[in-house]
Amino acid sequence: MSQSHSDNERIGGFHAVVSVLESDRPVRRLWLAAGRHGGRHDKLVMLAEARGVPVDNVAMDRLDAWLPNVRHQGCVIELEPAREYKESELPALLAAVDSPMVLALDQVQDPHNLGACLRSAAAAGVHAVIAPRKRAAGLTAAARKVAAGAAERVPFVPVTNLARALQRLQAEGFWVVGLDGEAESSIYETDLPEPVVWVAGGEAKGLRELTAKHCDLLVFIPMAGGMESLNVSVATAVALFETVRRRRAANY
Amino acid sequence: MSQSHSDNERIGGFHAVVSVLESDRPVRRLWLAAGRHGGRHDKLVMLAEARGVPVDNVAMDRLDAWLPNVRHQGCVIELEPAREYKESELPALLAAVDSPMVLALDQVQDPHNLGACLRSAAAAGVHAVIAPRKRAAGLTAAARKVAAGAAERVPFVPVTNLARALQRLQAEGFWVVGLDGEAESSIYETDLPEPVVWVAGGEAKGLRELTAKHCDLLVFIPMAGGMESLNVSVATAVALFETVRRRRAANY
Repeated sequence: MSQSHSDNERIGGFHAVVSVLESDRPVRRLWLAAGRHGGRHDKLVMLAEARGVPVDNVAMDRLDAWLPNVRHQGCVIELEPAREYKESELPALLAAVDSPMVLALDQVQDPHNLGACLRSAAAAGVHAVIAPRKRAAGLTAAARKVAAGAAERVPFVPVTNLARALQRLQAEGFWVVGLDGEAESSIYETDLPEPVVWVAGGEAKGLRELTAKHCDLLVFIPMAGGMESLNVSVATAVALFETVRRRRAANY
Repeated sequence: MSQSHSDNERIGGFHAVVSVLESDRPVRRLWLAAGRHGGRHDKLVMLAEARGVPVDNVAMDRLDAWLPNVRHQGCVIELEPAREYKESELPALLAAVDSPMVLALDQVQDPHNLGACLRSAAAAGVHAVIAPRKRAAGLTAAARKVAAGAAERVPFVPVTNLARALQRLQAEGFWVVGLDGEAESSIYETDLPEPVVWVAGGEAKGLRELTAKHCDLLVFIPMAGGMESLNVSVATAVALFETVRRRRAANY
């Protein structure tokens, strides 16, 4: 469950590397342990060549050093580092998918938390993460490292004005649902309209009042005791996976 | 949602401090900003005296330094630091509650991950977290810091032999459910018997084979793409809150 095949932009292990080569993710280079041969080796070389990805041999212990604790099996793929997307790219990103899901982060300032949120978002199948450009963490090396490869998979879109970005999404048919410990409705006893933009607040203060005002709906995650709190990446995952659960239930 | 009232063993803010004083959590001392008076001040002093908790005055900027980013409102309570529980204490801990929930961590080795798991567990209302004593993180200062006060709220019980501890819990009527990315059943489409012990694996390798064999049930969290992964504290929260959700649904 918590298995990691990645350090940042490097992903190891035969099946993981095949998945990347068969996807449309931008790839820099394929590294193969020197002296290895056989069917798996050949398959990787074939896939890489079909995409025009350069293949290099490298000593096994170099791969070990890059990806300690990862069963890289002598093959490691290096991705293009994540880029930040432009706000103007957002509509096309979302128009391209059937059941879009968006995560909006309201002033998450710690790059580790941003990275952790990206990882949760990627696992839940989020199509874009938006966040204000100012007073919020950007896609730094620290954020990308904690994201464990997710920054390369989920488009991260800094926006000039979060409230206005939410309004635009509403105009396109999205429902904006905020996570708010002070809300009156529990996430589990509330209809969650679709398609959804989940909004989570920063570390210390939760949602800003202005952001909360732009939500169609505010819900809380029911917690034990009165004073508990969840890390923002954890709260985000609980919310995103509640949408995953409901979508699956609707399709059964 | 992500609001934190705590640095480690210090909790600030009027309502949070009242909650602690009205609970049975072991408390060391109550700190009040010098020069403050009024009904709230008096209420705190009264509650503290009723429990025999020493009360001290302190300069406001000292409280600010202890708890930056926290609205401590001039009152901070200091908890007894978390202790590890003995395996022999586990049955009594669980017998004391109506609908017990246990989290077992199989070789989580990073103290930050342990702390994050404790925080998720506390928020979900877990009654005990068990983990093997060897080759796993203990309740270090780093773990307690990330736990943001949760280490003081959820008993952490190192056990000599995790498989045997799970068997004992089974003998007491618990169902042991493991999170396993390779499982055949999705967490959302599987009956989850109660009371439950959730079992999550370590960072790199997931559940050990021996641990998986001792589970009554293995489920996976459905993730987007094939190669995604969740941080262990996030996967744990998604699982624990699925139990929270079902319990609430059963009571409605």
